[in-house]
Amino acid sequence: MAPRLAAWVEAERDRIVATLLEWLRIPSISAQAAHAADVRRSAEWTADLLAGAGLEHVAVLETAGAPSVYGDWLHAGPSAATALVYGHHDVQPVDPLDEWTSPPFEPAIVGGSIAGECRARGAVDDKGQVLYQVEAVRGLLATDGRLPLNVKFLIEGEEEVGSPHFESLLAAEAERLACDVIVVSDTDMWAPDVPTTCVGMRGLVAYDVRVRTADADLHSGLFGGAVPNPAHLVGRMVAALHDDGGRVAIPGFYDDVADLTPDEEASLAAIPLDEEQWRRMAGVRRLQGESGRSLLERIWTRPTCDVVGIDVGYQGEGMKTVVPARGGFKVTFRLVPDQKPEVIAERFERWLETMVPEGVDVDVTPHGGVAPALTPVDHPAVSALCRAIEGVWGKAPLFTRIGGSGPEEALGRVLGAPVLYLGVALPDDRFHAPNERMVMDQFWKGLLAAGELWHELRSP
Amino acid sequence: MAPRLAAWVEAERDRIVATLLEWLRIPSISAQAAHAADVRRSAEWTADLLAGAGLEHVAVLETAGAPSVYGDWLHAGPSAATALVYGHHDVQPVDPLDEWTSPPFEPAIVGGSIAGECRARGAVDDKGQVLYQVEAVRGLLATDGRLPLNVKFLIEGEEEVGSPHFESLLAAEAERLACDVIVVSDTDMWAPDVPTTCVGMRGLVAYDVRVRTADADLHSGLFGGAVPNPAHLVGRMVAALHDDGGRVAIPGFYDDVADLTPDEEASLAAIPLDEEQWRRMAGVRRLQGESGRSLLERIWTRPTCDVVGIDVGYQGEGMKTVVPARGGFKVTFRLVPDQKPEVIAERFERWLETMVPEGVDVDVTPHGGVAPALTPVDHPAVSALCRAIEGVWGKAPLFTRIGGSGPEEALGRVLGAPVLYLGVALPDDRFHAPNERMVMDQFWKGLLAAGELWHELRSP
Repeated sequence: MAPRLAAWVEAERDRIVATLLEWLRIPSISAQAAHAADVRRSAEWTADLLAGAGLEHVAVLETAGAPSVYGDWLHAGPSAATALVYGHHDVQPVDPLDEWTSPPFEPAIVGGSIAGECRARGAVDDKGQVLYQVEAVRGLLATDGRLPLNVKFLIEGEEEVGSPHFESLLAAEAERLACDVIVVSDTDMWAPDVPTTCVGMRGLVAYDVRVRTADADLHSGLFGGAVPNPAHLVGRMVAALHDDGGRVAIPGFYDDVADLTPDEEASLAAIPLDEEQWRRMAGVRRLQGESGRSLLERIWTRPTCDVVGIDVGYQGEGMKTVVPARGGFKVTFRLVPDQKPEVIAERFERWLETMVPEGVDVDVTPHGGVAPALTPVDHPAVSALCRAIEGVWGKAPLFTRIGGSGPEEALGRVLGAPVLYLGVALPDDRFHAPNERMVMDQFWKGLLAAGELWHELRSP
Repeated sequence: MAPRLAAWVEAERDRIVATLLEWLRIPSISAQAAHAADVRRSAEWTADLLAGAGLEHVAVLETAGAPSVYGDWLHAGPSAATALVYGHHDVQPVDPLDEWTSPPFEPAIVGGSIAGECRARGAVDDKGQVLYQVEAVRGLLATDGRLPLNVKFLIEGEEEVGSPHFESLLAAEAERLACDVIVVSDTDMWAPDVPTTCVGMRGLVAYDVRVRTADADLHSGLFGGAVPNPAHLVGRMVAALHDDGGRVAIPGFYDDVADLTPDEEASLAAIPLDEEQWRRMAGVRRLQGESGRSLLERIWTRPTCDVVGIDVGYQGEGMKTVVPARGGFKVTFRLVPDQKPEVIAERFERWLETMVPEGVDVDVTPHGGVAPALTPVDHPAVSALCRAIEGVWGKAPLFTRIGGSGPEEALGRVLGAPVLYLGVALPDDRFHAPNERMVMDQFWKGLLAAGELWHELRSP
């Protein structure tokens, strides 16, 4: 570990904490139009932060939505590697407000700035995790006078609303953003004493399926039993999505699923998972899923299908004796390497056609597609990240995946670089929920690990 | 046919039509609180109608909802039979108003009062069909000075909202309403040249099923694939209600279904049904149902199951990546003789239990039960009705059933008398729809048939 950076942190701790609290006071909620000016204020604040830390070419990058912020330090020379740090400065909404123990935008340090935690909306998702990256740059410049490699920062303003303009921004700014490796600072670790790094995220394919069987609702006494009922058809479609073993029953759905490497399998097996505790955290009374697969496989490394909503016919109070005329359902698929969104989409649509009897109208609307992201665990950059984490936490990290989908896939694909995940959040940090927090010890470790990482990655 | 009654009708035609139009101007919509005063005005108008026709003991019978109207003529003596005429004076709402060619409560005679039709809300359902019964009594009293049997009228005010207080009224007034036979004047015939009489109506059992799998909606990326999804469970339940042959798959569902008698089968086979025309009338592009059964069996004589609504999870615009926490469906069963609502209810609930995995909460709410109604076709009163219809239409009627459910079952059960259906409506009279109409020729025939029927039924 770099003793000079650690000493610098010691001396700068109070200023760093004050900087964090100042940023957290800006309610940069991207989902709410009323906070658009706050998101812009946060972007300008972020630009000042980057410039103050010694980054150059700082710019607020406009999009059709909320702005991102860019800054770089490119004096390591052409033979050194270039890393791009990704994070976001927007935050989630705060409802339900009455469950917060302190106001979400009045950040509080509880238990001290070393061993305690910081409570506020955005503390860990993602302002805290951007700040330790920026402060690592400031610290290295202050102590070494230079960075071991070229560094670029791209801090998004719309991550919490699904990054609607992010991919066009990446494409438009591909030259400015060109890099050898991407470091995402927006994920979590399994536990403080079980350091982990994410090596993959699931992809996403979503559909809205609408069924129409008649011109209008029909009297269930006069017509029931002789006309098609869209509720029955939708029920059969939804039921047929899975077999009795909980496997997705669409032909060819699993064809392209890549096996885990032995390293990944060993790492997965080493994760100390308490299923009962996970079940309680989920707020369910039973766990279920694809048969023959472990809980971690089900949420990380296996593709899934979940119907997110069904609506058919009458839903009001009491009863209405009709055969409904229309209805439908919304379904999402989570994809894993090497499934391709366009292939799964085509297989789903072809399967759906086989479910529809003649004389029934079915309307199918796709809702975007995100490919799964995978960083090969044997990539040298992953080894570099593992050494950086081990240097700070004292243990080599295990590999995890994230079941969700995000802008990381587009980052890796558009910029053509491997994606590393240096995340210090903890699973119980209450992402998106009341009383979001960041554990300060993880924050300081993240800062030091970022410094280590730049040394490890210095050659391309 | 009674020539004196026919001559009387000829002389009274203009007054009868004027009476009909006057009644149809009262917007007695029982479903809409804003029309409660109109329903009461209609009840008072009905009471005056009955009294004016020569009925006695006329009374507005109060219920917890809208009032019914009673009147009788009991001078035929204790050796004569007593018939009770049932109809209703309330009407359906009129939406969508812009589809009416003339205002629903400004009744219009189109094409003349003999060969034409009367257009208005309530023209055929049911004011017109009550009026020909009342005028038959007035006519017989005017021409014969007496009726061949004792007659009671019970004209309900809440039929169009499901007769919520009707059975308690029947029970409370059982003595006043005691009779040997009930004549329902609220149904239809197959065609003007194919006279028919209904001999049965289906019963009804309805349920609201609610499923809950989690405390709250869960992120479909982080939890999807490992937790139960209520959409999948509801889909499986709905799909499992029917087998691939369109039969209801609940064990024992068909156990108590009575076979048709040879007379009923022959009558069903004689109905001149154009399936293609029926399909167009239903507004569907395909017909389907229980395999091995004809269209008429499916809608009249076979029990059915229709899910009337499903609602699970997210139903808004676009997509939401959640595993929903709850959802449910509403289902109705139409029952035929000799199925009992309580037995079907018990079998459904027992079947549903087998569908629910441990750790999922299911809440099942029954919504009432109506037994199927059946009038044996070999009952002497049915033969009397057939002779009355043949006397006017020139052909013996065929037997039909009604797929729907109504207060007729309660009438027969509580009063302990067979239920006859003298209905002159036609299938394309647009019940409950814009431009409801009554074909005047059917109205005049109904009046004469009512007169015939009292002669045929005079002995108990």
